[in-house]
Amino acid sequence: MPITSTRTGLQLRSLIKPGGELELSLVEEPIAQPAADEVVVRIEASPLNPSDIGLLFGAADMSTAKAAGTADRPVLTATVPERLMAGMAARLGQSMPVGNEGAGVVVDAGSSAEAQALMGKTVAVLGGAMYSQYRCVKADQCLVLPEGSTPADGASCFVNPLTALGMVETMRREGHKALVHTAAASNLGQMLNRICVKDGIGLVNIVRKPEQETQLRSLGAKYVCNTASPTFMDELTAALVATGATIAFDATGGGKLAGQILTCMEAALNKTAKEYSRYGSTTHKQVYIYGGLELGPTEFNRNFGMAWGMGGWLLFPFLQKAGADTVQRLKQRVAAELKTTFASSYSKEISLAEALQPEAIAVYGQRATGTKYLINPNKGLKT
Amino acid sequence: MPITSTRTGLQLRSLIKPGGELELSLVEEPIAQPAADEVVVRIEASPLNPSDIGLLFGAADMSTAKAAGTADRPVLTATVPERLMAGMAARLGQSMPVGNEGAGVVVDAGSSAEAQALMGKTVAVLGGAMYSQYRCVKADQCLVLPEGSTPADGASCFVNPLTALGMVETMRREGHKALVHTAAASNLGQMLNRICVKDGIGLVNIVRKPEQETQLRSLGAKYVCNTASPTFMDELTAALVATGATIAFDATGGGKLAGQILTCMEAALNKTAKEYSRYGSTTHKQVYIYGGLELGPTEFNRNFGMAWGMGGWLLFPFLQKAGADTVQRLKQRVAAELKTTFASSYSKEISLAEALQPEAIAVYGQRATGTKYLINPNKGLKT
Repeated sequence: MPITSTRTGLQLRSLIKPGGELELSLVEEPIAQPAADEVVVRIEASPLNPSDIGLLFGAADMSTAKAAGTADRPVLTATVPERLMAGMAARLGQSMPVGNEGAGVVVDAGSSAEAQALMGKTVAVLGGAMYSQYRCVKADQCLVLPEGSTPADGASCFVNPLTALGMVETMRREGHKALVHTAAASNLGQMLNRICVKDGIGLVNIVRKPEQETQLRSLGAKYVCNTASPTFMDELTAALVATGATIAFDATGGGKLAGQILTCMEAALNKTAKEYSRYGSTTHKQVYIYGGLELGPTEFNRNFGMAWGMGGWLLFPFLQKAGADTVQRLKQRVAAELKTTFASSYSKEISLAEALQPEAIAVYGQRATGTKYLINPNKGLKT
Repeated sequence: MPITSTRTGLQLRSLIKPGGELELSLVEEPIAQPAADEVVVRIEASPLNPSDIGLLFGAADMSTAKAAGTADRPVLTATVPERLMAGMAARLGQSMPVGNEGAGVVVDAGSSAEAQALMGKTVAVLGGAMYSQYRCVKADQCLVLPEGSTPADGASCFVNPLTALGMVETMRREGHKALVHTAAASNLGQMLNRICVKDGIGLVNIVRKPEQETQLRSLGAKYVCNTASPTFMDELTAALVATGATIAFDATGGGKLAGQILTCMEAALNKTAKEYSRYGSTTHKQVYIYGGLELGPTEFNRNFGMAWGMGGWLLFPFLQKAGADTVQRLKQRVAAELKTTFASSYSKEISLAEALQPEAIAVYGQRATGTKYLINPNKGLKT
C-alpha cells in the first residue's frame, strides 16, 4: 500500500495574526495521492536561504521570540513592531508553508511513465513548502541529481546557482563586461566567484571583514575590497578601473554602499574620459539590490552623473524574462557542476522542530556568512 | 560687406580655476565666416534653464559671489567648496561657453541654397554657446519659427518641449499608462500638464506650495498633490490609484520624495492586489531623476517590493535612443503648437552683462518657479 493513502507528514508553518503576533509551528498534513504526472518526494534537505527567512519571520522582531509547546511540537512566537504591520497586511491570518527549494527521494509516483521513471531517485525541487516531510510535485519540476549525489548535495541547486548565473547573464544582456558583488563571501558569493574564475569574467568582491577577504583570495578571487578599510573607496575605484565593471549586485540594500559603488564607477570611468561632460560619464552604471541584509534606509549622493540606475533584482522575474531556453541551459550547467562550481556548505543540519528553537534562530537568523543551516525534515526518523 | 568679416560678438564664459575659483566673464569672439551649409544667427533670446545654470555655476557656492570688472565687461567670481572640486576635475581651466538653446535672426548665410533660404528668417537653434551675440551653426540645425513669431517665442522650443514630450514618450515605451511629475508648476511642468490635458493622459502633479496647486488646477490639472500637506502620502496614493501611474519624473533628486513616490505606487498597487506576494507587487515602478533642485542626498526606505527602479534621465540620450523619426515627429509638434502647448514665460529679459550681476543671480539662481530669466545677448544694441 502506498504511503500516501494513510500517512501524514509534518509541515512548518508561519502565521502572522492580525494582533501583530508571529507564530511558527508544525502541523500534520495529509500526504496527497499523486496524480498521473506527479510524484511524492520525501524531503531530506532544504536550506534556510535569506529569502526563506524573510517569509518565515516576516517583519517580526526576533529578539522578542518566545518558545512554547512541546519538544516534538514546538511553537515559537514573536512580535511584529506596529510600524511594520502595514507591510504584512496581505498575509495576515494566513498559515503559510515555507521553503523555496529542497531535495529528497521519490517514494511514490503517479501512473505516467515520466513519474514512474523517478521512483527511488534522488531529486531536487524548486516549488515552495519544502520545510515538509513529504511534498507532492509535478514530475517535470524534479531535477534528477547525478549518480552518487545525496539530498544535501542538491538541496541548494536552484536558488543560489540560478541567482549567481542570472547575475552573469544579466551583466551580458545589459551590455556590461564585468561585475561587482557585495556580501561576497556568502555561499552565493563563493559560487559567483567560482563561475567568474572558471569563465574568465572580471568580478569585484566587496566584503566587510578581513577573514572574508582572505577566504575569497584563497578561492582565487583577484579583486576583493573591504568596506572596513580606511581607503575602501580608492581600492574599489582601482578594482573598477582594472575590471571595467559597470554593474553591481548588492545584497545589503540599506546604507550607503549602493551609492558608493556608483560613485566609484563614475570615478573609474572619468579616469579614462577624454573630455568634460557636464552630465558626467555617458556610460550607464547600474546597481541591482537583490537583498536586504541592511534593513535601514538606502542613502546616496548623486555625484555620479546622470547615466545611472538602481533597482530591485529578483530571480523569478529574471527567469521569466530570460525565457525557457536560457533557463534550461542554466539548469543543465548546475546539474553538471553540482559538486564543484555550485557546491554549498552548511554549518549544521537541523530538524523541523529544531528550526523553531530560539538558540537555532539566534544563529541562522543572522543570515551571516558561516551561519547557514540545512533543514532535514526527516532527520532522526526511519526512512 | 557681410558682418562676419570684420566684427566680433560678445560671448559669456564660465571658467573654474584649479585653485577653486569660478570666474564668469564676457569675451569678444570673432564671428565665423559661414561655410556653404552654415548660417550666422544674431541671438536675441536664450533661456536660463536649470541645465544651463548647472554648467554656468558648476559646483560653486553662489552665496560667495563677488562682482568686479566694469558695467560693460563685468566679472563675477565665487568659490567652489573644496569637497566638490573632485567633481569639477574634467572642466578645470577650460573657459566654457554656455546656453543650450536660443533663437534669433539669420544675418549671414553660406552659399548653399538651404543656407541662403534662411537669410532674414527667425530661427531657433539647439547647439550650445547660445549666450553669445552671434552663433555660426549648420543650416539644418535651425528650426524656422512660424510667421509672426518673435525670438522670445522660440527661445525655449527645444529643451523644455522635447523634455516634456520625451517623458510622455518614455512612459509609453516602457509600458506605463500615466505619469507623475514633481516641481510640477515649473515652465516644464505647465507644458507637460498642457500635453497631458490635450492628449488625455493621466498626470499626477506634485508641488510644494498652495499657490502652485491653485495655479495648476486653474490650468486644468486634475491631480495635484502638495508635499506640504500633512496627508500628502494618502493624497498621492489616491491619485496613483485613480490614474494608475507607475512612472515618475523627479526634478528634485535629493531628499525623500523619489522614495515616497515609489512607496505610494506600491501602496496603490496593493490596494487592488488579489493575493499575498512576499516580494511585493510584481508591477515595475520607476522613478527617473532628471534634475537636482534639492542638492542633498537621496534617501529611501525599501518598502515597495522588488519591482522598482530609480535612475537618471536626460534629454539627449533619450533623443538618441528614440531615433531620428521620433525626434522629427516631436519637433514638428513643437513648431505646430509653439504659442499654445509649448509657450514659455519669463519673469525678466536681461543682457549678457546683466546675467553676471549678483542681484540677477540671486533671482534666477534659485531655479524656482516664477524666477526664470531670458537672456537677450543683443539687448539694447542697435540690430
